[in-house]
Amino acid sequence: MCELLGMSANVPTDICFSFSGLIKRGGETGIHKDGWGIAFYEGKGFRAFHDPVASANSEVAKFIQQYSIKSTQVICHIRKANRGRVCLENTHPFSRELWGQIWSFAHNGQLKGIKKKVLNGYTPIGTTDSEYAFCWILGQLRKKYPVKPKSKVKLRKTVEELFRKVSQHGVFNVLMSDVDHLYTFCNTKLYWLTRQTPFVEAQLLDADLCVDFNQEASPDDVVTVIATEPLTSNEQWTKMETNEFSVFRLGVKTFTQVS
Amino acid sequence: MCELLGMSANVPTDICFSFSGLIKRGGETGIHKDGWGIAFYEGKGFRAFHDPVASANSEVAKFIQQYSIKSTQVICHIRKANRGRVCLENTHPFSRELWGQIWSFAHNGQLKGIKKKVLNGYTPIGTTDSEYAFCWILGQLRKKYPVKPKSKVKLRKTVEELFRKVSQHGVFNVLMSDVDHLYTFCNTKLYWLTRQTPFVEAQLLDADLCVDFNQEASPDDVVTVIATEPLTSNEQWTKMETNEFSVFRLGVKTFTQVS
Repeated sequence: MCELLGMSANVPTDICFSFSGLIKRGGETGIHKDGWGIAFYEGKGFRAFHDPVASANSEVAKFIQQYSIKSTQVICHIRKANRGRVCLENTHPFSRELWGQIWSFAHNGQLKGIKKKVLNGYTPIGTTDSEYAFCWILGQLRKKYPVKPKSKVKLRKTVEELFRKVSQHGVFNVLMSDVDHLYTFCNTKLYWLTRQTPFVEAQLLDADLCVDFNQEASPDDVVTVIATEPLTSNEQWTKMETNEFSVFRLGVKTFTQVS
Repeated sequence: MCELLGMSANVPTDICFSFSGLIKRGGETGIHKDGWGIAFYEGKGFRAFHDPVASANSEVAKFIQQYSIKSTQVICHIRKANRGRVCLENTHPFSRELWGQIWSFAHNGQLKGIKKKVLNGYTPIGTTDSEYAFCWILGQLRKKYPVKPKSKVKLRKTVEELFRKVSQHGVFNVLMSDVDHLYTFCNTKLYWLTRQTPFVEAQLLDADLCVDFNQEASPDDVVTVIATEPLTSNEQWTKMETNEFSVFRLGVKTFTQVS
């Protein structure tokens, strides 16, 4: 199984603290040593960093840890390969353009029979079931909406429907992002936490590192962090329900549905 | 105007030496201070690094300079903005997936009226004429070949046709890559150089740095570097002809046509 980390914030925020905890699990405090990746949204722009080596030993990860990239949405993934060999093209998050926006996707779980689904316009580069599912989801979105739907509710409902269809194929814990929204689905395990005033000092579980967000954040900042397992020892993480679909925007959970 | 750098090699090769020269032109020895980007092909995998700041001052550029990523194909671009503001989404190289491969594209020049062309399935994220042209080219390829054509010659001819059509809109010096080929078009300025045995010591023009490729390379290595301006002072760079379309594969120029 892999580990996921996501962030949604109302102001461009760096993820160095949470990332510092997560990468330790990529070969040091955890077994997820088969590559890692991180994707940042900066305005309409998008950049991603991938490395097919253990994050705990990755030079790219060390760089990302030190270099503060401020972003309103982040998706990160450390991989324990089960389907698809260890290589760059099988390293999450995957990304594709739809309606002039970059969509990105990271997944934890295995999906049986997903590759029998017919694709529409998006083709996987690697061999993972995860990338295949992502390509199928985007293809279905494009088929239903050749141009971006004006109604955010319609779009959200379609994404939820597609996530629920994919989740019938196995374990599907997922983070998917367009420029504005972080769509999440919890099939077995996903936790979340919102940091806002009054801020506290947070202590990482996987590294001897704490940050006093009173010093780091401004009073109006709202930052939600989503992860496979809690990353800090002294904050109250909420476990998502089984089959919970939730949407985050600007740090706030804007929709949730369990079924 | 911007500066381009490309590499095609028969073995995974790092581009640190050439890159060290080029990035100086991004705000130090040159005026191309409006961002930069670099894309690497590693097997079927692809990763790109972008930074919307001057490459001469970029922390990401310093990292890439020190961290040897070995690749058979590289496209790099340093930007002097003329169309489209300075931001991440306007930073070359642009990339999209077609037929399960990542295609990437970097352009030097301005294209008048390009945005009147009708797109097909690929939509720009930013506002540059370059990204628009790239989206149009890929959309035309997909329209003509819904699946990847088996004939490389057919594909090459279509790419050439599309390049020549775009070049009618203005200045079009370009590097475009799929997993296997580096397609180039020289409208006004592009130089190239092949390094192979017997290797020499090369001296950068923009930095006090030389490399003895006798020490660095193996006898069978064939590496072609393509750039807007020669990067070294003591090697024989070949200037491409006006309206020359050339294709490189595994370090070798496999096709060239001037018209």
